[in-house]
Amino acid sequence: MSGNTFGKIFTLTSFGESHGEAIGGIIDGVPANFPIDTTKIQRELDRRRPGQSNLVTQRKESDTVQLLSGIFEGKTTGSPIGFIIQNENQKSADYQHVKEAFRPSHADFSYHQKYGHRDYRGGGRSSARETACRVVAGAIAKQFLESLNIQFSTYVDQIGVVRFENDSFFETKLIERNVVRCPDEKTATEMAELILETRKKDDTIGGSIRCVIQGVPAGLGEPVFDKLHADLGKAMLSINAVKGFEIGSGFDSIAMNGSRHNDLFSSDGSTKTNHSGGIQGGISNGMPLSFRVAFKPVATIMQTQPTIDEAGNETEIEGKGRHDACVVPRAVPIVEAMAAMVILDFYLRNKSVHL
Amino acid sequence: MSGNTFGKIFTLTSFGESHGEAIGGIIDGVPANFPIDTTKIQRELDRRRPGQSNLVTQRKESDTVQLLSGIFEGKTTGSPIGFIIQNENQKSADYQHVKEAFRPSHADFSYHQKYGHRDYRGGGRSSARETACRVVAGAIAKQFLESLNIQFSTYVDQIGVVRFENDSFFETKLIERNVVRCPDEKTATEMAELILETRKKDDTIGGSIRCVIQGVPAGLGEPVFDKLHADLGKAMLSINAVKGFEIGSGFDSIAMNGSRHNDLFSSDGSTKTNHSGGIQGGISNGMPLSFRVAFKPVATIMQTQPTIDEAGNETEIEGKGRHDACVVPRAVPIVEAMAAMVILDFYLRNKSVHL
Amino acid sequence: MSGNTFGKIFTLTSFGESHGEAIGGIIDGVPANFPIDTTKIQRELDRRRPGQSNLVTQRKESDTVQLLSGIFEGKTTGSPIGFIIQNENQKSADYQHVKEAFRPSHADFSYHQKYGHRDYRGGGRSSARETACRVVAGAIAKQFLESLNIQFSTYVDQIGVVRFENDSFFETKLIERNVVRCPDEKTATEMAELILETRKKDDTIGGSIRCVIQGVPAGLGEPVFDKLHADLGKAMLSINAVKGFEIGSGFDSIAMNGSRHNDLFSSDGSTKTNHSGGIQGGISNGMPLSFRVAFKPVATIMQTQPTIDEAGNETEIEGKGRHDACVVPRAVPIVEAMAAMVILDFYLRNKSVHL
Amino acid sequence: MSGNTFGKIFTLTSFGESHGEAIGGIIDGVPANFPIDTTKIQRELDRRRPGQSNLVTQRKESDTVQLLSGIFEGKTTGSPIGFIIQNENQKSADYQHVKEAFRPSHADFSYHQKYGHRDYRGGGRSSARETACRVVAGAIAKQFLESLNIQFSTYVDQIGVVRFENDSFFETKLIERNVVRCPDEKTATEMAELILETRKKDDTIGGSIRCVIQGVPAGLGEPVFDKLHADLGKAMLSINAVKGFEIGSGFDSIAMNGSRHNDLFSSDGSTKTNHSGGIQGGISNGMPLSFRVAFKPVATIMQTQPTIDEAGNETEIEGKGRHDACVVPRAVPIVEAMAAMVILDFYLRNKSVHL
Repeated sequence: MSGNTFGKIFTLTSFGESHGEAIGGIIDGVPANFPIDTTKIQRELDRRRPGQSNLVTQRKESDTVQLLSGIFEGKTTGSPIGFIIQNENQKSADYQHVKEAFRPSHADFSYHQKYGHRDYRGGGRSSARETACRVVAGAIAKQFLESLNIQFSTYVDQIGVVRFENDSFFETKLIERNVVRCPDEKTATEMAELILETRKKDDTIGGSIRCVIQGVPAGLGEPVFDKLHADLGKAMLSINAVKGFEIGSGFDSIAMNGSRHNDLFSSDGSTKTNHSGGIQGGISNGMPLSFRVAFKPVATIMQTQPTIDEAGNETEIEGKGRHDACVVPRAVPIVEAMAAMVILDFYLRNKSVHL
Repeated sequence: MSGNTFGKIFTLTSFGESHGEAIGGIIDGVPANFPIDTTKIQRELDRRRPGQSNLVTQRKESDTVQLLSGIFEGKTTGSPIGFIIQNENQKSADYQHVKEAFRPSHADFSYHQKYGHRDYRGGGRSSARETACRVVAGAIAKQFLESLNIQFSTYVDQIGVVRFENDSFFETKLIERNVVRCPDEKTATEMAELILETRKKDDTIGGSIRCVIQGVPAGLGEPVFDKLHADLGKAMLSINAVKGFEIGSGFDSIAMNGSRHNDLFSSDGSTKTNHSGGIQGGISNGMPLSFRVAFKPVATIMQTQPTIDEAGNETEIEGKGRHDACVVPRAVPIVEAMAAMVILDFYLRNKSVHL
Repeated sequence: MSGNTFGKIFTLTSFGESHGEAIGGIIDGVPANFPIDTTKIQRELDRRRPGQSNLVTQRKESDTVQLLSGIFEGKTTGSPIGFIIQNENQKSADYQHVKEAFRPSHADFSYHQKYGHRDYRGGGRSSARETACRVVAGAIAKQFLESLNIQFSTYVDQIGVVRFENDSFFETKLIERNVVRCPDEKTATEMAELILETRKKDDTIGGSIRCVIQGVPAGLGEPVFDKLHADLGKAMLSINAVKGFEIGSGFDSIAMNGSRHNDLFSSDGSTKTNHSGGIQGGISNGMPLSFRVAFKPVATIMQTQPTIDEAGNETEIEGKGRHDACVVPRAVPIVEAMAAMVILDFYLRNKSVHL
Repeated sequence: MSGNTFGKIFTLTSFGESHGEAIGGIIDGVPANFPIDTTKIQRELDRRRPGQSNLVTQRKESDTVQLLSGIFEGKTTGSPIGFIIQNENQKSADYQHVKEAFRPSHADFSYHQKYGHRDYRGGGRSSARETACRVVAGAIAKQFLESLNIQFSTYVDQIGVVRFENDSFFETKLIERNVVRCPDEKTATEMAELILETRKKDDTIGGSIRCVIQGVPAGLGEPVFDKLHADLGKAMLSINAVKGFEIGSGFDSIAMNGSRHNDLFSSDGSTKTNHSGGIQGGISNGMPLSFRVAFKPVATIMQTQPTIDEAGNETEIEGKGRHDACVVPRAVPIVEAMAAMVILDFYLRNKSVHL
C-alpha cells in the first residue's frame, strides 16, 4: 500500500534512507532448492556503484551487500532473503542547506507536503541510493532466468542528442567495454565527450536506455490490467528520473499504418517484424522483448539556483557534493534488475494458468 | 494475480468476453454516503460507444449499464457496486475465420500459447470491448473527484503525422465539439480527413492522447515503486493498442540540460515551468498532471494478409466486419477513466499517511 | 482492501445486497482448459437454499446462477467467471421496522456507525444471502480438487447440547441422507427434534460443523503468516454467525501433555495419530485435514425484544418473516465451499515454490 | 504470496532463520510524523525473551533490536522501518540430530516435503524465534493505538486443566506481577506449579490466552471476507503452536439459545451483555473486543521418541537443548503484538470509508 514492495510472487520490499544507518530489503517468493552465486550479486552492485569511472560521481561507497537469510549451504530454502547494505557516507553536515530550502525538481517539496516530517539528508528515502536494493533483487532474479535461457541486453542508446538507433541484442561483454555502456564504440565516445563537456559547464544531461530480452517464452503476462508491458512500464517509471517508456514501435507507431505495423507470422510462430516488441494483447509471443526508457537530466546542478524555503521565503540553493553529470550509464544495471524482477515474477505467475 | 483487478483501495475487477452473454465488473472501495448521478455513467459510456460518428465503426451496440448493488436511495453504501452490460452483437458466425487462423498483431496467438483454449469470437477477453467496464468505474471515480475540484482535460493531440503541439487544459465541452476530440478545430479537421483517407485505403492509423489534470492536491503518490506516474503509466499501458507513455517533458527530456529542465519555485510553492508534469519523486506537487499516451494503428485492416493457423500452416486472413480506421478518438474516455481511477485510488491511499 | 475479495490466486470477489436487484461475483485465477459441469454448481446452491426441508426457513428463492463469462464450449478459458443470482424476494415493505430500530446482535448498528448510510432491507450487504456466491465459487473449486482426488466430508457434529463426537471421514451421500446433515442417524434425529422444539419456543439454537478433507498433498500452506490453518480459520470466521474455529486437537490440546499430543510417524511418513489436524508448521503433511467451526444461535428470534433506534430512543422490535431456528445444517455447503476455495488457492500458490 | 507479510496498510514483512546470521523485518505503512519511544520496543521484546524466569527456557539471547530506517529525529517519516535482531545462539552442532530425523509434531517433515531443502538448525524458518519480529512491529503499533486510547489486556487464562474463568480487563501491571502472566495470584501459583511439575516429568503442557481490548471505536472491520474477528483469528492461528480461536461467546455459543445470546442495547449504543465479543457483522460495535487463543503443548520433549529419517527408516530422536515446558506465558506479548497490528491496520483501512 505504501509502495515499498514490488512484484506479486517474486517480491522485493525495500527500506532505507541515503544517510541512515543502512538500506536493505527482503526478497520473497524465491523458488526453493536453487543454487545462488552470491559473487554475481556483488558484481551487479559494482556496476551501479558510484566512483566506477571518470564519467560518474567520485563518491566512494563500497556498497557491500550482506545476505542474512534464505540461503543455506549455497541454495535457496524458499524462505525470504533479507539483506542490508551499510551506509558509509553519512556526512549529514553536508545537507544543512537542503534542510532549509527545497531543491528545484527534487522530491523535497512534495515529500514535505505529504509527510510533514522527512529525513532531508541526501534526499533521504527519495535518494536513488534506494535502487541498490533493486539491483540485489534483480541479480538474484537473473540467476533464475539464466537457468531458463532468458538473457538481457541493456544499453545506453541516447545521451542528449547523440543517439544510437538500434534495437539489436548485444552481449553484455560488448556493452561493458566502455564506461557509457553503449555497444557502439564510436557513439560511446561521442556520448562520453558530451557528458564531460556538460560537466565542465556545471550542468547535467538526460539520456535513454534500450533493453532487449531474449528467450522469454510465449505466454507470460496477464490479459487485462497486468499486461506484461504495463508492468514493465510501471517498473521502469518507478526508477528515479525516468520520464517515459515505450515498447516495440512505441511513439513511432503513432505515424504508422496498420498495413505496415502488423507483424506477419512465419510458419514457426515467430513474426517477420517485431513492432509489437514481443508482446501481443499483453502476453509475450516468444519474440524478443524490446523497450526503451527515457531519463531526464539530473536535477542537482553545480550552479546556484533561486528557490524557496518551507516558509515560502525566496532563497538560493547551491549544488554541493559529488554528483553525476549524467546518471544514465549507471542506470543500466537498474533497468536490467527491474526487468529481471518483472519477467521472473510473471514466469512464476504463469505457473498457475493450468491446474 | 490474473490481472483482472485494478487499483488498491478503489478497485475495478472486470469480466467478460466480447461475444459472451455480458461483460461487467465489481467496483469496490467506494466511499460511502456519497450521491451518484447514474446518468453521468451512461453518458461516459456513450462517448466510448461504437457508431457515434462517421469516423468510427458503425457497429450498433447500445452499451447500457445495469447497476446491481452498492447504491441505495441514490447514495453509495460503501458496499461493492456490481454491474453488467449485455452483449447485443453476438454473431458468432462472423468469427469462424478467426478460429482457424491467427490474426497478425492480435492476441490470438499469444492467448493460444498461454491458455490452450480460448473464446476466439471477436477476440474474446482480449477485445477492447472490455474497456467499457473501465469507463463505468472511471465515471464513478470522476464524480468523487469533481467534488474535490479535480478536473480532467483529455484530448487527441496526434493522428498519424498531424500533431497538435500543446499541453494546455481545455474544457471538455471544447474537446467534444468535434468527432476527433481535438480541441483545435483546424487540426481536428486535418485529423478527420486523414482518418477518412486511411479508411478509403482499407488501412488504419495510430495516434496519441494528451491528458491534463487540474486540482490534484500535493502529496498523492507513494515513494519508491508506486510513484504516481508509474501507476498512471501502467494504467495507460494496460489499454489496448497503447505502445508508449510519457509524463511531463517525457522523451524530450533526454536532450535537455538540467539547468533548463529544472522547475523553479514561485513563492506559493507552484513552479514556473512544469517539466515534471506535476510529480516530483513520485508524489504530486500541486501542479497540473500532464502525460501523453501513444496508440498503435488498429491491427484489423480490410485487406487480405498472409498468416498461419494453429498447426503452423500458411493461410490467409481477410479483414471482416465493421472496424475503426482509427481508434484514438474513442479512446479518449478510456484514458480519462483510467486516470480518474488512479487519482481517486491514490487519494484514498493517502488518507492513512497520518494517524 | 474493502474485504469483498477472498483468495490470492483463485479468488472470489462478490457483490450484492439481499434485497437489491441481484447478487453475484467474479471468480478469477481459474486454471484454463478444464471442463466444468455447471449442473454441479446449481446442485451445491440447492443444498444451501432456503425452503429445502421442514427444519429450515420456508422462504422460496430459486437461487438460479447465471454464468456470464470464462467458460467456452464447456471448458474454462482462464478468463474470469462472472455470475449473477437474481433476487426474487424483494418485499422491501417487510423491513420498515428494521429501518427504524437496530436488531440486537445483528450488524445494523455497526454498519450504521461505519457507513452512515445502509441498505437496511433484510440486512443488506450483511445478510447471509451473500454466502450463495461463496457456494458458487466453492462448487467450481471442488471440481478442480476432485480431479486431484481431494475430497470433502462436511457435517453437523453438534446442535445445542446434542453432540456427535467423531472426526471420521463420511461420504457426502451418508451426510445428505437426513435434513440435519449429521452422518449418524440417531444423533441426527435428536438434533432435528431439538431444532423443532426450539422453533416452537420462537427461539433459535447454535451448533457446530466438522470438516474433514482427504487427499490433500503434503506441502500446501505458507510458513509464517499464511499458515494453511490460519487461512482456513479466517475463511470460516468470515462466515456469518461463526464464533470459533479449531484445527486438529483444538481447544482440547490445552489440557494435553506433549508426550501424548505429539503425532508419531509411521515409516511411510503418515502419522499414527492426527492431533495436528493434517498441518505441521502451517504446511499440510499429507494426513487428512480436520477442523471444527462453532456457530452462534441465529439472532432473529420470533419474540419481541427491547432495543434502540438511530436516535438512541428505546423501542421494541419484533421478529418477522421466515427465519431459520437453526442455520447450521444449511451452513454445511458454505463451510465446504470456503474450505475448497482455500485448498485450491494454496494448491495454486504452491506451484511457484520451485522454478 | 509466500506468507511472510502480514497486514494490508500497516504491514510487517519478516525474514530470518533461528540459527542464521540475523532475523528482522520491514514495517511499512507507518503513519508519518509520530513520535516513537524506542525503549518501549525493547521492553516488549524483553517480555518475550527466553531466560526471563525459572519457568521458561534458560537459553540466553539478548534479542536487541536495531532500527535502521524510517525514524528520524525521534519521529516516524512515513518511510518503512527496517530492523534486525542478531542471532547470538548459533551452535549449529546442536542440531545434527535434527538433520537426520524428523522431530514428531514439528515442521521438519512438512518443510522437507514442500521445499526439498531446508535450514534444519533449530527449526530454521519454522522456529518460534521469528515471533520476535512480530513483537517489534506490535510494539510500534501499540504506540499509535495508545494515542487513540486503545488498550490491551492479555493474560494466560488456562494452563493444562487449571483455568481462570474470567474475561475482564486487567491492567498490564497486574498481569506482569507473576511469571505466568495470569492476573489472579492464586490461579497463577497453581499454574506455575503445574508447569514445574510437568518439566520435572520431561514433558510439556498446553494453555490458553485471553485478550481483551478496550477503546476500539465502532466501525473497524470490513463486511464480508475481512471481518475484524476473521483477521484477528488468522493473526492468532498464524502464531506457532496455536490450535484454536474463539471470539466472544465462542464455542460456548453452540449450546445457547438466541434469546439468551442476543446482546440487548442500552440507550448509549453499548450492549448489556457482550457475547458478540465487541464485533457485529464483522465490524466493531464499540464494546471491548474479547477473544481466546488455544496453544498446544510444546512438541520438543526431553524424552526419547521413535521417529523416521528422510529415507523413511525408523530411528529415535532425543530432546536436547533448553526448551520451555510451557510456552504460553511467553506467548502473551506475541498475542498482544498480533492483535495490535490487526487493530491498527483496520483503523487505517477505515480511513477511506468516507471521501
